[in-house]
Amino acid sequence: MGPFTRVGCMRRFDGMWRAVADVGRDRRGGYARDAWSAADLELREWFRQEAGLRDLAVREDRNGNLWAWWGDPGSRPGVVTGSHLDSVRQGGAFDGPLGVVSAFAAIDALRERGVRPGRPLGVACFTDEEGARFGVPCVGSRLLTGVLDPARACGLTDDEGDTLADVLRAAGRSPQALGRDEETLRHVGVFVELHVEQGKGLVDEDAAVGVASAIRPHGRWRFDFRGRADHAGTTLLADRDDPMLPFARTVLLAREAAERHGVVATVGKVRVEPGSANAIPARVSAWLDARGPEESAVRALVAELTGAAGAEVECESWTPVVDFDAALRDRLAGALGGVPVLPTGAGHDAGVLASAGVPSAMVFVRNPTGISHSPEEYAEPGDCHAGVAALARVLEELCD
Amino acid sequence: MGPFTRVGCMRRFDGMWRAVADVGRDRRGGYARDAWSAADLELREWFRQEAGLRDLAVREDRNGNLWAWWGDPGSRPGVVTGSHLDSVRQGGAFDGPLGVVSAFAAIDALRERGVRPGRPLGVACFTDEEGARFGVPCVGSRLLTGVLDPARACGLTDDEGDTLADVLRAAGRSPQALGRDEETLRHVGVFVELHVEQGKGLVDEDAAVGVASAIRPHGRWRFDFRGRADHAGTTLLADRDDPMLPFARTVLLAREAAERHGVVATVGKVRVEPGSANAIPARVSAWLDARGPEESAVRALVAELTGAAGAEVECESWTPVVDFDAALRDRLAGALGGVPVLPTGAGHDAGVLASAGVPSAMVFVRNPTGISHSPEEYAEPGDCHAGVAALARVLEELCD
Repeated sequence: MGPFTRVGCMRRFDGMWRAVADVGRDRRGGYARDAWSAADLELREWFRQEAGLRDLAVREDRNGNLWAWWGDPGSRPGVVTGSHLDSVRQGGAFDGPLGVVSAFAAIDALRERGVRPGRPLGVACFTDEEGARFGVPCVGSRLLTGVLDPARACGLTDDEGDTLADVLRAAGRSPQALGRDEETLRHVGVFVELHVEQGKGLVDEDAAVGVASAIRPHGRWRFDFRGRADHAGTTLLADRDDPMLPFARTVLLAREAAERHGVVATVGKVRVEPGSANAIPARVSAWLDARGPEESAVRALVAELTGAAGAEVECESWTPVVDFDAALRDRLAGALGGVPVLPTGAGHDAGVLASAGVPSAMVFVRNPTGISHSPEEYAEPGDCHAGVAALARVLEELCD
Repeated sequence: MGPFTRVGCMRRFDGMWRAVADVGRDRRGGYARDAWSAADLELREWFRQEAGLRDLAVREDRNGNLWAWWGDPGSRPGVVTGSHLDSVRQGGAFDGPLGVVSAFAAIDALRERGVRPGRPLGVACFTDEEGARFGVPCVGSRLLTGVLDPARACGLTDDEGDTLADVLRAAGRSPQALGRDEETLRHVGVFVELHVEQGKGLVDEDAAVGVASAIRPHGRWRFDFRGRADHAGTTLLADRDDPMLPFARTVLLAREAAERHGVVATVGKVRVEPGSANAIPARVSAWLDARGPEESAVRALVAELTGAAGAEVECESWTPVVDFDAALRDRLAGALGGVPVLPTGAGHDAGVLASAGVPSAMVFVRNPTGISHSPEEYAEPGDCHAGVAALARVLEELCD
């Protein structure tokens, strides 16, 4: 029994939520919690403190992911829950932290009810899930599972030109240690990630929580349009090689082709060099995010854009469809009294682990607007509490 | 007679050119000399040292412009030459520094020939001509002449969100001091700016140097396209309000309309918020640079784009046509033996001063490719030396 037995786990949830609410928040209410930024380091310290308050033993693995254990994970593979604490830029409060805060609160709930888990129970915080800083999502879980090559990861650069290796060294970590981590993976018998829903499936189903069926195939491609820098005022139109024009055509084609192929396509990040108002650009780099129900349709979209764009195109990440373990999914939905089961178009660490053979599942909490990756991202307190209760039930079921 | 009489002024020119060649240079050979950056501060210190070596008295005016005087400018209005030391990002070596280095070398040339000017002779370095950092060009000369409101200048922000007032304070300057500076303006009887040509007019005329007739009307407009941030993977196309789409349409329309109106239009700077690959943008801000032979045509272009874009549009700067003082221009061209006289589409501090009633002129040095605002910007050493000789002749003529 931990020190919080006299305090309702939901009040603990609310207190934790307030404790992280201002970390990395900007003046307009959005969050900037880039991996390894000051805000991220503060949240990692918060994670250690919350674990300490509960007598959970904290380890940081070789790839920067944090693990807080109730019981010895060396004794037998554990049941792990958690999510991530970094955010997209100008992101919302819920994507990531809801899963970590709910994990600690669910442990409090189990302890309040006197549950003693029959297996080691862990809380995980994966590093750099969003890829806001280095452009590649799920860096922590992809390195852990060996999907992301450590040498490639080390060479990823942020907007300042610093590599991930530089940033890790500055944070006192060792880039040489990155890579597939068998020991840590052996600790994870099953993984359950609770997450705010990023669509309106649960609104339509009139349910506070649900369980994921699958993650749709998705990927990220970088398009580099090259031209010739020159003076904006003195260069005749006919003498220009302006990469802004094929870039703009590609943005419009991406939308039109996405409708035709039945997928979604987004250009949300653009880098212009030199980026001066009075200079024709030398280069425009644009990131295309594309996802859909069918891999073939996403592939066809990207092939069409690559053919038309006249750009160098590099696939920065590709995740095939992830069907979560059906037996596990049904077991969770059953334990929760038959909640809705629904797919998502968003990538998650749970999907990376599932693809690597770790039985994994996700619990979604209703989002009244469906908006995510925005300061408007939201879940009602009552639904968050329902999420904690559901997660506690699931953990109890899995630890049994 | 200064200390350089035994050294040819052209060798002094070459030495100065080498001294500044690596300041603010990036790995790819381009320059980043934002106003008040470490590189800019180093160049300002270089300016003070070169002035000191020549026993020129240096003053920094209230707006951060530097002045090095041979003779007392309080005695009677002086003849001033110079340019700027800041650059666009990934810019070339010549735009700005060529005019300052040539100014010092021209003084050396006069002293070698034993000329004792009959009027005070000054070398000026104007602050933040390019506007690379805060988005508004010719900040130093516009503040000096009162064209730019000091309160508006103080509130300009750079990419880090720092205001010009913040940056000035950090550099030990007083933002309160900004504004029209009558005392400094009284010192400037006439201003001559030497500059690398930013087109191929002198190549076509087969001449190493020329004199400016006029600066074409030009302006800069900021287009803010607003939408709603949301998740790139989970938001249906039909539910999106993606500002990247009207932005892309505006880029293409700007090019097409520029051809129709007989002007040039450029989108060289774009800011996407939040700027994450997996988020639909909340906002896309784009800067339009438009210029042409006729004011009415530029105005018509901007009106057409404003009507079609669905964006908030703000004019950040507008400079009507500047016809340089005809008598001064003819006097210079005559002193140089009838060199070509040609207009330019590029803005300059000389244009700002001319508009404010200071008799001003420009001397251009041939650019073999016409490329500017790029690492490829270039002038042959022999043409640079011809520029120094021409500037010395002009100064001697004007000081007489």
